[in-house]
Amino acid sequence: MSLIQTLLRASCSSVLNVNWWDANLPNARAVPSHAGIYTWGMLTAPASTHSLLESAKKAARGLAQKNRNVALEHISHALLEFEAEILEANVVDVALERQKGTSDALLDRLSLSPKRLEAVREGIAQVVALPDPLGRVLEGWRHENGLSFEKVTVPFGVIGMVYESRPNVTVDAAVLCLKAGSSVVLRGSSSALQSNRVLVKAMQVGLERAGLPRDAVQLIDSTDRSSVTELITARGLVDLVIPRGGAGLIAHVVENAKVPVIETGVGNCHLYVDSSADLEMALNILLNGKVQRPGVCNSLEKLLVHYEVAPIFLPLAVKALREAGVEVRGDDDAQLYAPGVVPALESDWSTEYLDFIIAVKVVKTLSEALEHIHTFSSGHSEAIVTRSLESATRFETEVDAAAVYVNASTRFTDGFEFGFGAEIGISTQKLHARGPMGLREMVSYQFRARGNGQIRG
Amino acid sequence: MSLIQTLLRASCSSVLNVNWWDANLPNARAVPSHAGIYTWGMLTAPASTHSLLESAKKAARGLAQKNRNVALEHISHALLEFEAEILEANVVDVALERQKGTSDALLDRLSLSPKRLEAVREGIAQVVALPDPLGRVLEGWRHENGLSFEKVTVPFGVIGMVYESRPNVTVDAAVLCLKAGSSVVLRGSSSALQSNRVLVKAMQVGLERAGLPRDAVQLIDSTDRSSVTELITARGLVDLVIPRGGAGLIAHVVENAKVPVIETGVGNCHLYVDSSADLEMALNILLNGKVQRPGVCNSLEKLLVHYEVAPIFLPLAVKALREAGVEVRGDDDAQLYAPGVVPALESDWSTEYLDFIIAVKVVKTLSEALEHIHTFSSGHSEAIVTRSLESATRFETEVDAAAVYVNASTRFTDGFEFGFGAEIGISTQKLHARGPMGLREMVSYQFRARGNGQIRG
Repeated sequence: MSLIQTLLRASCSSVLNVNWWDANLPNARAVPSHAGIYTWGMLTAPASTHSLLESAKKAARGLAQKNRNVALEHISHALLEFEAEILEANVVDVALERQKGTSDALLDRLSLSPKRLEAVREGIAQVVALPDPLGRVLEGWRHENGLSFEKVTVPFGVIGMVYESRPNVTVDAAVLCLKAGSSVVLRGSSSALQSNRVLVKAMQVGLERAGLPRDAVQLIDSTDRSSVTELITARGLVDLVIPRGGAGLIAHVVENAKVPVIETGVGNCHLYVDSSADLEMALNILLNGKVQRPGVCNSLEKLLVHYEVAPIFLPLAVKALREAGVEVRGDDDAQLYAPGVVPALESDWSTEYLDFIIAVKVVKTLSEALEHIHTFSSGHSEAIVTRSLESATRFETEVDAAAVYVNASTRFTDGFEFGFGAEIGISTQKLHARGPMGLREMVSYQFRARGNGQIRG
Repeated sequence: MSLIQTLLRASCSSVLNVNWWDANLPNARAVPSHAGIYTWGMLTAPASTHSLLESAKKAARGLAQKNRNVALEHISHALLEFEAEILEANVVDVALERQKGTSDALLDRLSLSPKRLEAVREGIAQVVALPDPLGRVLEGWRHENGLSFEKVTVPFGVIGMVYESRPNVTVDAAVLCLKAGSSVVLRGSSSALQSNRVLVKAMQVGLERAGLPRDAVQLIDSTDRSSVTELITARGLVDLVIPRGGAGLIAHVVENAKVPVIETGVGNCHLYVDSSADLEMALNILLNGKVQRPGVCNSLEKLLVHYEVAPIFLPLAVKALREAGVEVRGDDDAQLYAPGVVPALESDWSTEYLDFIIAVKVVKTLSEALEHIHTFSSGHSEAIVTRSLESATRFETEVDAAAVYVNASTRFTDGFEFGFGAEIGISTQKLHARGPMGLREMVSYQFRARGNGQIRG
């Protein structure tokens, strides 16, 4: 894999992350016996994490009424002010990781630079510019007895973030949570601990200067894996946990959490080339999906081709993919139609490569394609290329994924491309938020009723 | 407690339920080691439950495109046709429970009658009349590159229901899930097993007559507690679990689930009587909240009174409460102001009595009331009686509950009173649905994009 290819890898769920988490978490499923002993909002847990979560909960009160945009601007200034200290800490993180023999690709992800910090501050400015998601009256109506109701957006309270290497996520995530009126408790990668400490210190300085409680942003300053468990089981203290990273991390959080979770990011995305497809369009969409940025969750991992067009399309497609450095695996038919296709194993169909690899299958019908997608899709993004209105409609209606594309690339599943602005993650679950989860989805709601003595008959 | 009082008890989370579940579940937290061994959508579990969930998932496909209202009408007819068999089975359930020495109150909840079955069928007709929650285009827009997006409501897929005694919930819940285009897997109380078997058989007959898959409604035909665990840990097969019942059942589900959950029902609801309150209004709202139907989750459990009005209000209020058969517990001040108030223990402040009991506290300020509510509220419904706009606004803004009332009874937190129609439960969590969860909240959404070859630059 070339350096260019490595740099093309991106945020949402790199294979590098998967390896990092899995390699370092032999006892991922072990839940300490002290966790989750819950009695009416109280949690028995080691004092440090417990008190940190309590102070985050306390800081969350009234945050919705504070000027959060001013605070974000102070945070941006503080990050500039602390830049030297942040970069120094980051050098230590990178040096420690290098000693462990960490790959150059991972070291690059871990590294901060003045340019990267500038991008972080630009991201803050973009979030400042977004409309306030709080206090929106979603609906209002009047009961026949005169009682008037409003459904109003309100903050979650405390949001826990569990994420991996890249220290810029520390700021990106915190800023979105603050804008949404919630406190945030961050549990980043141990490899970025020194950087994260200074980043959080700077953000806390910014909060204080704006008159907001510094405890609204907190770092779980521990490399102990049990701290993740403490965070994700703290019922009554944490309102929502969002894991961001590889499949291993996400599975760990979803399996062990006792607080609500938004499951993010795993994308085993398919492109189905229908018998009526414009094959040139299909080739463009295929290459865009697989090659442009293979390390992200909305990239293509599988290609399904109708048998009627396979003899024409596959030789062209496989040639183009291989020229772009992609390893092509395939079923018997795919191997038959195109030279250079290596045999796919059964496990290939469920694997999110996040790499320059694709698996190809020839199908007899749209129904067979839908059945395959139904079996192996991770519910992220799926695409069809077709000229048939019937095929397009059936694909849209029957595919159970966050985003379904007709004649377009799966790469568009992204908060900015959708026009939502920065996203905290891409949800692959069906509860609350599905697809890109931006500011608008980072809030809850409340019913408010005003009357003049109404009682129920 | 009189029989009338007992009959006034109702659905959402009766203390009778709590006792039933807790008494019968000594190992509520023990998770069988076979559960949750998850590898990409597959679950290792005893064949019976696993295959039942798989068939429910299969049945869910295409349900959105079927005529679900016709199916509900067939279900209603089948329930009438099977009435004699349902009532016979119910007699067996009631007799078995009576042998165990179950209380008359619980036996009443368990009992079906032609009149109760008629009410169930009326409920079905109401659900038929509600608008279809599926296929609603929530938003639509166009990317600058011409790609057109729609955000469309779609079904969850498979919804698991875990609930207690009352067999009418079996039909009420199934009908809502079907209308929302999801399969439903029911795990009711073992005490209602005979009744539930026939009710589900009748519903399956109705589904078949309408040309829908019978597996769209299924009963976990087991009194083994591990079947609950299997249901709530079946990642990849179950999209949502909704527990309905007492605090013990709900806590068990929330603590052990590995699939998304909507936490429902526990209501430790407060009424705060401000210094500026209309005291006659406050008395009416207090009595309505506590006495009208104390067994439901939106009933009042706590009274907070500003010290300036306590000497006038409390003697009247305590007298009226006691005359209505309510036991009044209170702090030192409450005992001082009104005769007949017995001392409250610290545990009273966090207890949902669901009974003719209330605890009273005198507070010095609105802030103290807010602090108390913040500490002890279960996030269900909270009310203030005040003439002060400032107090009203502060209460609305600072109380973190699903529903906040100014000068009205907490008893209005109900799907029908809100105008939503039948509810599957009242959510006390902040993710996805908060407060009464009706048909509109029983769906997910999906993004659909149509283009003409758009790729990402």
